Amino acid sequence: MVKEEGGIVAEQGSFSAKDYQDPPPAKLIDPAELTKWSFYRACIAEFIATLLFLYITVLTVIGYKHQTDPELNPDDQCGGVGVLGIAWAFGGMIFILVYCTAGISGGHINPAVTFGLFLARKVSLIRAVMYMVAQCLGAICGVGLVKAFQKSLYTRYGGGANSLAVGYSTGVGLAAEIIGTFVLVYTVFSATDPKRSARDSHVPVLAPLPIGFAVFMVHLATIPITGTGINPARSLGAAVIYNKEAIWDEHWIFWAGPFIGAAIAAFYHQFILRAGAAKALGSFRSSS
Amino acid sequence: MVKEEGGIVAEQGSFSAKDYQDPPPAKLIDPAELTKWSFYRACIAEFIATLLFLYITVLTVIGYKHQTDPELNPDDQCGGVGVLGIAWAFGGMIFILVYCTAGISGGHINPAVTFGLFLARKVSLIRAVMYMVAQCLGAICGVGLVKAFQKSLYTRYGGGANSLAVGYSTGVGLAAEIIGTFVLVYTVFSATDPKRSARDSHVPVLAPLPIGFAVFMVHLATIPITGTGINPARSLGAAVIYNKEAIWDEHWIFWAGPFIGAAIAAFYHQFILRAGAAKALGSFRSSS
Amino acid sequence: MVKEEGGIVAEQGSFSAKDYQDPPPAKLIDPAELTKWSFYRACIAEFIATLLFLYITVLTVIGYKHQTDPELNPDDQCGGVGVLGIAWAFGGMIFILVYCTAGISGGHINPAVTFGLFLARKVSLIRAVMYMVAQCLGAICGVGLVKAFQKSLYTRYGGGANSLAVGYSTGVGLAAEIIGTFVLVYTVFSATDPKRSARDSHVPVLAPLPIGFAVFMVHLATIPITGTGINPARSLGAAVIYNKEAIWDEHWIFWAGPFIGAAIAAFYHQFILRAGAAKALGSFRSSS
Amino acid sequence: MVKEEGGIVAEQGSFSAKDYQDPPPAKLIDPAELTKWSFYRACIAEFIATLLFLYITVLTVIGYKHQTDPELNPDDQCGGVGVLGIAWAFGGMIFILVYCTAGISGGHINPAVTFGLFLARKVSLIRAVMYMVAQCLGAICGVGLVKAFQKSLYTRYGGGANSLAVGYSTGVGLAAEIIGTFVLVYTVFSATDPKRSARDSHVPVLAPLPIGFAVFMVHLATIPITGTGINPARSLGAAVIYNKEAIWDEHWIFWAGPFIGAAIAAFYHQFILRAGAAKALGSFRSSS
Repeated sequence: MVKEEGGIVAEQGSFSAKDYQDPPPAKLIDPAELTKWSFYRACIAEFIATLLFLYITVLTVIGYKHQTDPELNPDDQCGGVGVLGIAWAFGGMIFILVYCTAGISGGHINPAVTFGLFLARKVSLIRAVMYMVAQCLGAICGVGLVKAFQKSLYTRYGGGANSLAVGYSTGVGLAAEIIGTFVLVYTVFSATDPKRSARDSHVPVLAPLPIGFAVFMVHLATIPITGTGINPARSLGAAVIYNKEAIWDEHWIFWAGPFIGAAIAAFYHQFILRAGAAKALGSFRSSS
Repeated sequence: MVKEEGGIVAEQGSFSAKDYQDPPPAKLIDPAELTKWSFYRACIAEFIATLLFLYITVLTVIGYKHQTDPELNPDDQCGGVGVLGIAWAFGGMIFILVYCTAGISGGHINPAVTFGLFLARKVSLIRAVMYMVAQCLGAICGVGLVKAFQKSLYTRYGGGANSLAVGYSTGVGLAAEIIGTFVLVYTVFSATDPKRSARDSHVPVLAPLPIGFAVFMVHLATIPITGTGINPARSLGAAVIYNKEAIWDEHWIFWAGPFIGAAIAAFYHQFILRAGAAKALGSFRSSS
Repeated sequence: MVKEEGGIVAEQGSFSAKDYQDPPPAKLIDPAELTKWSFYRACIAEFIATLLFLYITVLTVIGYKHQTDPELNPDDQCGGVGVLGIAWAFGGMIFILVYCTAGISGGHINPAVTFGLFLARKVSLIRAVMYMVAQCLGAICGVGLVKAFQKSLYTRYGGGANSLAVGYSTGVGLAAEIIGTFVLVYTVFSATDPKRSARDSHVPVLAPLPIGFAVFMVHLATIPITGTGINPARSLGAAVIYNKEAIWDEHWIFWAGPFIGAAIAAFYHQFILRAGAAKALGSFRSSS
Repeated sequence: MVKEEGGIVAEQGSFSAKDYQDPPPAKLIDPAELTKWSFYRACIAEFIATLLFLYITVLTVIGYKHQTDPELNPDDQCGGVGVLGIAWAFGGMIFILVYCTAGISGGHINPAVTFGLFLARKVSLIRAVMYMVAQCLGAICGVGLVKAFQKSLYTRYGGGANSLAVGYSTGVGLAAEIIGTFVLVYTVFSATDPKRSARDSHVPVLAPLPIGFAVFMVHLATIPITGTGINPARSLGAAVIYNKEAIWDEHWIFWAGPFIGAAIAAFYHQFILRAGAAKALGSFRSSS
């Protein structure tokens, strides 16, 4: 925990890494991208991953609410996987899906992550837009599958849709989404920072696990407030399939919050943490 | 999360990996295999691993149901490890057993995984059949141990057998098994893709952990529907030892579902994700 | 689990590592440090990380107590994430925050960790003091955010402040904090020991995960006794914002305990485990 | 999951590894060992690790039973960390303690593991005996600390001692201990097999995590039967401090079971899995 980047090491590290990992910022619009199969394959992978994410997580939510319904099971209040199990479902699915799709699409599975990486010029505008479309369609299909499986339960137990809990103001819900997404996107930036390398023996990179844990943690904290969005595709998919007016009234929170949080995380990482590295390098070079 | 395979890197990666990991597709029938001790050793390892898998997980299920039985413990509805604990038992055992047997047999422990890898021509037909036989025998012995330990409890609490929960149609159960197995086998293919390598610093390979988590996640979601099979050996072992007619009536679901899900995952990985890689490489080579 | 350090290996290991990782002990006061942006950046990172740590964890605690309040939910005593979920929140946040900040500040997020590393001369006095100030300010802001979100709930449910549970003496509380912090700081020293290296194939380094687990474990054990401090910034932040006199009366326990525990861990690691290595090397060299 | 050891790879792997990791079997009695400080340091590390293991886990057990005591909290049956939390405490502590002590002592923390490794001639007889003594003393001290903290609660809630649950015969308890220890020691052998190496890109070695999970899994399954021993030091420490006659009557189960299980695992690994490798190599060499 004490490894300070000495000048030489950091210089080497960022040098060799920059050649490879920090290419010139992604173009806003890169027509060549559209001619490659790998681009479309990445969109398909994002679609499938978001579909699976929503399918498993919303099914877990509905199943839990069904098993602990006081009307059906007055004597069994402890059945089901619990709120802890729900938080695991969200975090664990992000872990395995980032693991599975990282090599194909970068493993975003979340428009807020895509937005943050776009702001940091890691992906092009076209790619960002296409990913978001794929994610939203995937989320809708994933929740649609759950509804197709068990329509009456789905509607009865709220459809996994995000909404403000009783007693919380809009501002609090928005703030909770902003900070929660900040935690997630900050972890994403930390995990994919090219200055980390496989040879960094003190903090090796196993990116998907901490990213999944970040989602798990935020769910533990904010399920009682908003049900935890921090992923506009997840919120949109549940809202489209559930489709009650009350849900739509608050739906903007689950786009504005995550996008603001992702922007702050991108700013924090690029201007405070990384720009600082650049300055430190500059001062080192001039002093040596 | 933004690592796109640049042509060079992907080419190198897949080149060196293909020599080693993507040998020509496994022969359907390879007599030479039968002359090696390592083949029989692998079958023994699959047998033991599936035995331990069923022993630990079914024991957990029975223990939980016993501790929360309302007739025995009217005041203690919250004892035992919970449904969350049961899901951990299934996922965690797969984690450690894949970890332990990966170097010996490949760590399948599941006929659906073996079937998916056979479709992708990673294992020969003979090996696939022998593995499935070993897995099914191991599962029967594992559940048999649990019954031998506590015959009355075993029968009273359903024997860990898979069946459709009340209120779900056959189609829903089949679909749940198909998608659940897809999640598992897709993770298996992603984790063992030769294009991943230890030098891939952004998504290093720690295959058994995400595979175990995939099993954990699917259990969180589908325990309320089918009890979660996604492993025909697990379902068969419990059915053979429990041996009630109602269980057998629905048993085909727990073979058809996993095999269909594994086939779709094999198709998705080999034709969408990997074939795409081949095409992308082709376009790169012709353009350079 | 049986790897004994043969003389040669240990010599090599510690030699190459010492050049890089065990520089001469950090100076007590290093003016040059103050001229580098990386120093201030590290303080900012500690501030933000401790803020996020307290925000997520205290929000989890308050949310859990709200959902299981017998007055509000007489029929639902089992809602919320449970004490297990709270322990996960503390451990999991340390995992992801150490992961995220290790490359920037060393990832302390805890004055007791900073104190232990200072005693082992891994950080300078100035850096240690500045980190502690940043951690305490971050903790206060993090808890402040939770209170701003839900003032009435925050006060009603105890504000996440540490205090002795009924029936435990001051001595027991102090001892629990000492041993708990020992577990954490011992893990930190083990995880960052330069003698470990990425090439140590038997116990590779993935430092943040066991550190996070150490926090998780200690919370499982001592939440019933003190609510678990083992982090003076965490205790101070909650006490400042909650600000009831009873909390302040016992507050010294949550500084004295962690600092004593960290000191014992530093002593154990530096004088028993590492000095032993030095002696062993000495005897090896003289004998060869 | 499909990596079959081709002859060449296995040969290379086991060759370079054998030089280093499979030295000639440890001598039964190695006087030179006794002259090295590293030997005594290892015993100290085993003592401290087992002390911390018992302290944290038994404290968790007592705290859980106190919080869910129906006499004290008739309305709160869901407090505490749950049986799942207890299983995590045992598994998680083994994870971090193996992680911390692996480089010092090999990280046994369990006489059954030491016995298994002794049978496989990985440690000398003297070392095995000294480790077991250190482990048993550490366990007694760890449980003693818990009793010193809260004597009345400790005695009231059974002191964390292992015993057969009502309704299970001695044979079942013994079998449960045998199979549970087999799972643990089999994982230990798999994790430390020299044929695994850091370069094995498909199943890299992160030994402490699966070992900790093995302990976690066995606790999920057998807490309802015996309270789960699989570690004679753990059972002895709790029995010595609790010291009721009924506990001592069954105490032999918690030595015989783990030792038999460890012996079977050592046999399985050395004669079925590894000897098979030797034969396979032999047939390869003769054919090439």
